[in-house]
Amino acid sequence: MDIIVLNRKATENDINRILKKLESRGLKGTISKGTERIVIGVIGDTSKITEDEENTVRVMKGVEEVMRILKPYKLASRDFKSQDTIIKVKGRIIGGKKIPVVAGPCAVENRAMLMNVAEKVRAAGASFIRGGAYKPRTSPYAFQGLGEEGLQYLAEASKKTGLPVVTEIMDPRDLDTILKYTDIIQIGARNMQNFRLLLEVGMCHKPVLLKRGLSATIKEWLMAAEYIMSKGNQQVILCERGIRTFETATRNTLDLSSVPVLQQTTHLPVVVDPSHGVGKWDLVAPMAKAAVAAGADGLLIEVHTDPENAMSDGEQSLKPDAFKKLMSELKPIAKAVGREI
Amino acid sequence: MDIIVLNRKATENDINRILKKLESRGLKGTISKGTERIVIGVIGDTSKITEDEENTVRVMKGVEEVMRILKPYKLASRDFKSQDTIIKVKGRIIGGKKIPVVAGPCAVENRAMLMNVAEKVRAAGASFIRGGAYKPRTSPYAFQGLGEEGLQYLAEASKKTGLPVVTEIMDPRDLDTILKYTDIIQIGARNMQNFRLLLEVGMCHKPVLLKRGLSATIKEWLMAAEYIMSKGNQQVILCERGIRTFETATRNTLDLSSVPVLQQTTHLPVVVDPSHGVGKWDLVAPMAKAAVAAGADGLLIEVHTDPENAMSDGEQSLKPDAFKKLMSELKPIAKAVGREI
Amino acid sequence: MDIIVLNRKATENDINRILKKLESRGLKGTISKGTERIVIGVIGDTSKITEDEENTVRVMKGVEEVMRILKPYKLASRDFKSQDTIIKVKGRIIGGKKIPVVAGPCAVENRAMLMNVAEKVRAAGASFIRGGAYKPRTSPYAFQGLGEEGLQYLAEASKKTGLPVVTEIMDPRDLDTILKYTDIIQIGARNMQNFRLLLEVGMCHKPVLLKRGLSATIKEWLMAAEYIMSKGNQQVILCERGIRTFETATRNTLDLSSVPVLQQTTHLPVVVDPSHGVGKWDLVAPMAKAAVAAGADGLLIEVHTDPENAMSDGEQSLKPDAFKKLMSELKPIAKAVGREI
Amino acid sequence: MDIIVLNRKATENDINRILKKLESRGLKGTISKGTERIVIGVIGDTSKITEDEENTVRVMKGVEEVMRILKPYKLASRDFKSQDTIIKVKGRIIGGKKIPVVAGPCAVENRAMLMNVAEKVRAAGASFIRGGAYKPRTSPYAFQGLGEEGLQYLAEASKKTGLPVVTEIMDPRDLDTILKYTDIIQIGARNMQNFRLLLEVGMCHKPVLLKRGLSATIKEWLMAAEYIMSKGNQQVILCERGIRTFETATRNTLDLSSVPVLQQTTHLPVVVDPSHGVGKWDLVAPMAKAAVAAGADGLLIEVHTDPENAMSDGEQSLKPDAFKKLMSELKPIAKAVGREI
Repeated sequence: MDIIVLNRKATENDINRILKKLESRGLKGTISKGTERIVIGVIGDTSKITEDEENTVRVMKGVEEVMRILKPYKLASRDFKSQDTIIKVKGRIIGGKKIPVVAGPCAVENRAMLMNVAEKVRAAGASFIRGGAYKPRTSPYAFQGLGEEGLQYLAEASKKTGLPVVTEIMDPRDLDTILKYTDIIQIGARNMQNFRLLLEVGMCHKPVLLKRGLSATIKEWLMAAEYIMSKGNQQVILCERGIRTFETATRNTLDLSSVPVLQQTTHLPVVVDPSHGVGKWDLVAPMAKAAVAAGADGLLIEVHTDPENAMSDGEQSLKPDAFKKLMSELKPIAKAVGREI
Repeated sequence: MDIIVLNRKATENDINRILKKLESRGLKGTISKGTERIVIGVIGDTSKITEDEENTVRVMKGVEEVMRILKPYKLASRDFKSQDTIIKVKGRIIGGKKIPVVAGPCAVENRAMLMNVAEKVRAAGASFIRGGAYKPRTSPYAFQGLGEEGLQYLAEASKKTGLPVVTEIMDPRDLDTILKYTDIIQIGARNMQNFRLLLEVGMCHKPVLLKRGLSATIKEWLMAAEYIMSKGNQQVILCERGIRTFETATRNTLDLSSVPVLQQTTHLPVVVDPSHGVGKWDLVAPMAKAAVAAGADGLLIEVHTDPENAMSDGEQSLKPDAFKKLMSELKPIAKAVGREI
Repeated sequence: MDIIVLNRKATENDINRILKKLESRGLKGTISKGTERIVIGVIGDTSKITEDEENTVRVMKGVEEVMRILKPYKLASRDFKSQDTIIKVKGRIIGGKKIPVVAGPCAVENRAMLMNVAEKVRAAGASFIRGGAYKPRTSPYAFQGLGEEGLQYLAEASKKTGLPVVTEIMDPRDLDTILKYTDIIQIGARNMQNFRLLLEVGMCHKPVLLKRGLSATIKEWLMAAEYIMSKGNQQVILCERGIRTFETATRNTLDLSSVPVLQQTTHLPVVVDPSHGVGKWDLVAPMAKAAVAAGADGLLIEVHTDPENAMSDGEQSLKPDAFKKLMSELKPIAKAVGREI
Repeated sequence: MDIIVLNRKATENDINRILKKLESRGLKGTISKGTERIVIGVIGDTSKITEDEENTVRVMKGVEEVMRILKPYKLASRDFKSQDTIIKVKGRIIGGKKIPVVAGPCAVENRAMLMNVAEKVRAAGASFIRGGAYKPRTSPYAFQGLGEEGLQYLAEASKKTGLPVVTEIMDPRDLDTILKYTDIIQIGARNMQNFRLLLEVGMCHKPVLLKRGLSATIKEWLMAAEYIMSKGNQQVILCERGIRTFETATRNTLDLSSVPVLQQTTHLPVVVDPSHGVGKWDLVAPMAKAAVAAGADGLLIEVHTDPENAMSDGEQSLKPDAFKKLMSELKPIAKAVGREI
């Protein structure tokens, strides 16, 4: 149901045109006259009214404002599905009592390093191995990833350690290749509104880890999830990774309040990536702990054996020892909020 | 040249490791001891040092901060090319004394409407016709564009009116199709960091209109231009269309100060899209005037014959009469800043 | 009128409690049952319902959302007073056809400099002299202003040039002193929500120039004006001076779209301060022009005879010659929008 | 030490003028010529150079950029004092192993309610009672607080429960009155840069709880602390309460990463106010837990016995039972990070 607020100059004629427009869409308007404004309440199934159609009312003569009551997303909403979505990947569960940790380097740089990291994060208790083979980089002159070679190393690391793979897709043309190697497809922050890519992964049968865009509202983020789900793929994992604000002391501002907000509005699991959220390795541990305390369903943590020689994101990667220490420190916090890690 | 600021606990050993690292990259460090901090100035050709490599220094023991002096973009910089880039498209010039106006509907909705708008904006003095055939929409349930059919109508409108076409690309797989019909390829705000798409249009021989991302800094925007230019296409037009801020009275906050800032830092032309900048048709005219007064090299304005029935962006589109009036009002402002319209 | 949206679990009992609460406040609720939500429209004079009372409904069982239709400001609203407020100060008019320019140094540094600047800006066509005697500075170690000595110089400069004075108040305890010397009292951005100060100047009989807070929405800004007006002082001039965003290329982001937005929502005059808006002297001229083209009712421009030795804001001050040039360049733009300068 | 980066057009003459200027301030410049830019390193005690003076260099001919290395705050810096500041108030400790919780209503509304809340929060384990007697309200028509009457109730509640009082000051003229009743003086977010107020409380002998401004960077926040400390009062407690961003799902965006950032840069204790941070009572508990996990030295939580009839902030207040439950849930999290509650 929508509310149409008229401006002070609205005439009878304006009202009639609006009512007629509503009728043409199978809806009905009820008029309430307040002391200062007339308001038209819209009755009927407004869930089929798109934002575009709403906008056409917004420009009608006599209209001051149009307020939407229904949320624009459906499949992603708790109204639609009240039970938590639980995603199973090769025996790992995302959205359950246990909090899985996805760990690994920002980019797959070479075979040896990846094997090394994979074994170490597995030993420390990680549930998934991550690493980018296709890297979205701000500069065209920066390392862009190893491509399929990187995917092969990921698959090899996965085979060796038993850890399923999470890796990022940047281009719909890479989808078939990536699907051969990965267990969860990651959509990066910069591609959260790459709608074509969303539609493509929506037609896959693998879970999608959807990062929040740098300046995406929670509503827009859920609309991006809706894109994927509208094509049939209901296995969407949301990943908070910080938003852009005026503060420059950290790379982004990790918005941990999105975790409880999402748990109210959606049934999809929410994981947190403190590494990108803060951008500095020595801030990762406190924010990982805070994420678990806030109720996160999982964590994404960048781990690198040699940050001083990393080809990307060295400044925000934990060394394996620091990761191991963090994993053990997270246990009592998980327990304190009724979870396990 | 970079500046490396050491923290208070930095030891001789730390300094030596840093100097050695610089040497391994063909650089030299000069040490200045201040009263509170030691600073290492880096001498040599640091333009080849990527941000990634910079970050590996950032994590070294003893380092507090690394400051970059050189700008990360090169081809897009005024340092690299001091003369204004002028782009010619079928007799129209972008970046010269005359200020071209790109006008048309948000989306191509049908043949008749487009022909109608095209003739009216041409009559009012527009230089280009615009219209989306592939539309990036927040909702998967909203109108997504007519696809190639829309492109055909654009080509027909162009043929009839003589106005060259500007239309948006969302997916690298559409490039060949779009190239058949358009004169300028538009990259939308949401795709400003769709790096694969940037690389693809970088290999084309047609000008690219690159919209600023919702939360892109001017530096990141120029880095996106650099992506295109690094592949050989030097014909990039920057388009300010508003940034995301806390203010909700307007759809976005049109950052007109980006116009003079860019004119100092880059040789590329800068156009302004007040329609998306404000999101409300009755604010478009004052902001279009302000853009010209601020020095914009062009304007993008959404025009629709029937906003009350528009399939997208109706609330921010001018009707042809309002557009015509605006065009005549812009003339004395353009003249006042030494331009023509 | 307010709209109360119920959540899916709202019971008959919840609805009755809400209706009773409305009745206790002299209001009536009308229930509309949509397909997905029940909505209660509130009828009666809701203008007396404070935001606090609204919030008490927000926490009632069964309530999902409360939407406010009426604007929270009254005296400042165009609904309340449709005609433009025109402010007259010693023969100068703010809010009329002519666009007054307030010019002068950031801070009054010494007598000689102020006299010099005052004469030069008057000769160039300024209508008011400005200068800070009490300066809000980010650092306690920075120059804090000359205090009453500075005010005396301002009064002397005013006497000599005939230009009325605009100067800032920071502390209610300075009010009596400042009133002796100034013609317009300035409330700085950092004090826009210093409510005690607003109430004090609201009891004065001198116009108040109210700068927009760094992160104030237009609505909050108008609420600050309402504070002043609620005490009887209707002579409020709004001053856009840039808002804080993620962009660091400029000191702030000058939000020129606030000018036409305000002209729709309030009857108060709106002036623009491009100097603080951009923070760099070589960006002031294009943004001053843009402000006039956008419809500003006035300008505030920092002018200093010797920015290389300024005690504050040197980097954003124009030299007198540059100011003179700008004044002459503004004339045709003012004319183009039906104004004079 | 500062770094002065010259632009490409800088001449020998420009360099000499800059060097002379540095000398006039007792500093020395060392020139490094890079491949693309000349850089002047400034040697000497630059800690006495104010930002204003820095700006006068910024506008000199030939200068492109001035970079500051030293932090602008001193007394607040860990460089100046490496040991944690511990604040003792009537047997309570802020900044130690135990995490004190400040609880109470937003505003003191009447005697009975305050007594009731005070006893309940004490029983639940709170260490301080809070409540506003002078309230900064966005609207002049909203409840503005009971003034001294409210302070008296606070004192009475304190006497009865043994809990020391935290209450807000808005106006320097209220200081003497407030000092009679409070144990900790609160500076609210809107007054973080009310510099006169900062100076006044800087001359007091009571601890000051300094809330972060809505759009204050961490650096600006520390500069506000520096204002207080520069007058002799070293007992400053920083309070993170959320910053303004584009996200509207929560009232503010609680920036928990400020906690570990501050613990690196300052010796002052940092407490977190999740109530204002999120603005919705049902999000307070998860964010309070996250704050403790992130390392907060204390919490501020709004508690009200009857939020449905609260005179302010009802929507973000916990009822006493929910507060009690939260207090017990916080214990294991505090323990997990080596603290107590």
